[in-house]
Amino acid sequence: MKLFESELKVVNIGLESFRQGLNDSGVKNVQAQFKPPLSAETSLFARTAKRAARITRANKKALDRILAARPALVGMGIALDVVPGMRKDLILHAGPPVSWEKMCGPMRGGVMAALMYEGMAKTPGEAARLAASGKIKYAPCHEHGAVGPMAGIVSASMPVFIVKDEAHGNYSYATQNEGLGKVLRYGAYSTEVIERLNWMEKELYPALKSALEFLGRIDLKTMVAQALHMGDEVHNRNRAGTSLFYRAIAPAVIRTCKDPERAAKALDFINGNDHFFLNLSMALSKASLDAGRNVKDSSLVVVMARNGTEFGVQLSGTGGRWFTGPAPVPDALYFPGYSKADANPDIGDSAITETNGLGGFAIAAAPAIVQFVGGSASDAAGYTLAMYGITAGESDSYKIPSLDFRGTPTGIDVIKVAKTGVLPFIDTGVAHKDPGVGQVGAGVLSAPPEPFARAFEHFARSLK
Amino acid sequence: MKLFESELKVVNIGLESFRQGLNDSGVKNVQAQFKPPLSAETSLFARTAKRAARITRANKKALDRILAARPALVGMGIALDVVPGMRKDLILHAGPPVSWEKMCGPMRGGVMAALMYEGMAKTPGEAARLAASGKIKYAPCHEHGAVGPMAGIVSASMPVFIVKDEAHGNYSYATQNEGLGKVLRYGAYSTEVIERLNWMEKELYPALKSALEFLGRIDLKTMVAQALHMGDEVHNRNRAGTSLFYRAIAPAVIRTCKDPERAAKALDFINGNDHFFLNLSMALSKASLDAGRNVKDSSLVVVMARNGTEFGVQLSGTGGRWFTGPAPVPDALYFPGYSKADANPDIGDSAITETNGLGGFAIAAAPAIVQFVGGSASDAAGYTLAMYGITAGESDSYKIPSLDFRGTPTGIDVIKVAKTGVLPFIDTGVAHKDPGVGQVGAGVLSAPPEPFARAFEHFARSLK
Repeated sequence: MKLFESELKVVNIGLESFRQGLNDSGVKNVQAQFKPPLSAETSLFARTAKRAARITRANKKALDRILAARPALVGMGIALDVVPGMRKDLILHAGPPVSWEKMCGPMRGGVMAALMYEGMAKTPGEAARLAASGKIKYAPCHEHGAVGPMAGIVSASMPVFIVKDEAHGNYSYATQNEGLGKVLRYGAYSTEVIERLNWMEKELYPALKSALEFLGRIDLKTMVAQALHMGDEVHNRNRAGTSLFYRAIAPAVIRTCKDPERAAKALDFINGNDHFFLNLSMALSKASLDAGRNVKDSSLVVVMARNGTEFGVQLSGTGGRWFTGPAPVPDALYFPGYSKADANPDIGDSAITETNGLGGFAIAAAPAIVQFVGGSASDAAGYTLAMYGITAGESDSYKIPSLDFRGTPTGIDVIKVAKTGVLPFIDTGVAHKDPGVGQVGAGVLSAPPEPFARAFEHFARSLK
Repeated sequence: MKLFESELKVVNIGLESFRQGLNDSGVKNVQAQFKPPLSAETSLFARTAKRAARITRANKKALDRILAARPALVGMGIALDVVPGMRKDLILHAGPPVSWEKMCGPMRGGVMAALMYEGMAKTPGEAARLAASGKIKYAPCHEHGAVGPMAGIVSASMPVFIVKDEAHGNYSYATQNEGLGKVLRYGAYSTEVIERLNWMEKELYPALKSALEFLGRIDLKTMVAQALHMGDEVHNRNRAGTSLFYRAIAPAVIRTCKDPERAAKALDFINGNDHFFLNLSMALSKASLDAGRNVKDSSLVVVMARNGTEFGVQLSGTGGRWFTGPAPVPDALYFPGYSKADANPDIGDSAITETNGLGGFAIAAAPAIVQFVGGSASDAAGYTLAMYGITAGESDSYKIPSLDFRGTPTGIDVIKVAKTGVLPFIDTGVAHKDPGVGQVGAGVLSAPPEPFARAFEHFARSLK
């Protein structure tokens, strides 16, 4: 009888929508922050628990290699000449493998732009027909040591930055960032897009290449560490990284570029694009994570990447195998005239920054990003703090001032993700779902559960 | 009898040293965070309370003018040509008025450096004799529309930045920052100091002046607002401000400087000195605060400045009158080989940044500064939050990300300071007390009580 006499207090577990009726009736209630594990196969958790010591050792080894990486910008070159396995009929793209038939709108737009830029097609229609003809091959950037934001398109003539992990000797590659507005990586392919790509190849690239040869190298690791002290998380906010890169390279551009007007235009272009550093922070992350690949029994995530259709994950202990699932649509601040209905699902290799403990994992360093989707500085801190629950360690180089310079959560452990149901937090740009339009917003999202559930289950099953 | 039976709990008010005996005896106690008012003349508080509405209106008017200021860098010139009232035999210095006899070591060193740079003396000994001869006149920078960090020396041949408050038409002036190490502003006067000053006049100045003429103006207000989002408080940390200024001016330097090597050297110099922006943030603050001067009945502080002997304050409602007291020695991180015993008392016009809601008032934006004197990010937030208790309002332009973009506490009200005993929090560089040595550390301090007590008492007494 006591139950019916006492005041009702309800603890709601699971779907928050169940609280609405209680709220409407004025019944006191609390929402338990409970998430179910990603995998229902409890025997697999037992398998990993039994081998926990061995997995922990393997993860430590992989994480130590990732943290010990010393990525530096060591030069530039044309993709065909420097990217391993590059060919004239090959187009690299973001995320896991995808066919032309299954490609999303902005990635198709990016491919069409690349074919016109390469002189292989004259019109968008011609480019689309060639793209679908079977004459053009497609492969993930990640399978050629490269990374690309949004559509992530790399074609043979594009200039790329060459980043070397000076601790382990491996290389990574990324194109020059085009800026905002109508750009290839968001799926635009108008004349201004192609003209800008030509200028970037014929004018910007030679200026930067000569400057880099003059300097020898630029230490990207120190630059990212500083950028985190300056309000960047080097994914969606790169103003500080761009500023520091600019300061480092400008005097060398002046000294090596014979034409002052050309030098000034190159610097104006970088100054006009606060995302210029993004491609470098991605290549730095790629070079660091590649150093942690192929450690037997390691459950650490070394790739998170999206092709606009699927979200793909790779683990250190499972080689080049992709684990995929549908890519979600981000919560975002949309540009005037656009809404979530216009948005393409999450796209781009840029989640390599989160995989490396940056981006959404370091968002406490850049609360401005959370603010524009209605969050507060404490929300930003909360997102970063939650990521310590699914990572194997903390960066000894990348630190967050507002968390008393605590190292960023680094080395996503797929076992922790599967056990806790806490998914990696990512911030990102948003492309229009149709080819030819471009960016429509920027926002945040949690990674989808399926790729992590699949990766965990495969990893656990194949443990010896 | 109950008192002697119950457990003893002590509340200690005032001197914390009284707690030591209690702590030693294991007696539980708490320290009340109580500060006595700065002035013992309670009748003066009654005088201001009686006229509170009028004072509040006056303070609002002054603060509105300060916040509405739009300081922009509009050009450069030689001090003799552009600083009002400048003469060949006049040397401007930081802080309130001071004679050669009473000048501290680093300010004497700065004066000696300036006389050698001007060609008026050949050796330090000759310079010291001339400085003391009565042939050289001294005046505060602040009385000539100028501001200078540390010794704050401005002599006739020095190039200065010209900052204009485009909302109200007033101007301010500051020299180019020399960098760290052996520099005039810290009292050094060796050959390298003089040679650098010559290079800054003959090479750096023409390059920057032409670039500024090409650009027309640089909006400093937006730059400072951005720098606060990038980990600067633009007093002791100016890496972001320097980066943003560099990005703005570099392409113009290239376009206007005929010799690429000279252009590169000018940019290298700025790139090598993360404090380059300090003098600009000071001139911006000076131009903003001067707009709030001479508002009848306003108790707002429009100047805090130190000459290394005394700390001086000016109020909006009391014109050019200085209120002074002894300058304290800062708590600091000292460079290897130095200690607080080597430190000169607080020196420089740079507290104009705090007066403008920046520097120590915005230190929550730059926790790195507190960290190096042993504090945490929450200490940094605490210092900023305490300043809201003594200010008349909040900036609508300068905002702190980690406080959810709250505007910085702006417009120090001397009545609030006197009533609460909470003193302005300042971060600063530390000079060696002897001439010729230079910087020995960097740290933080609270302003001394005497200048504020005197300013309050004079203000209250002269209220009609």
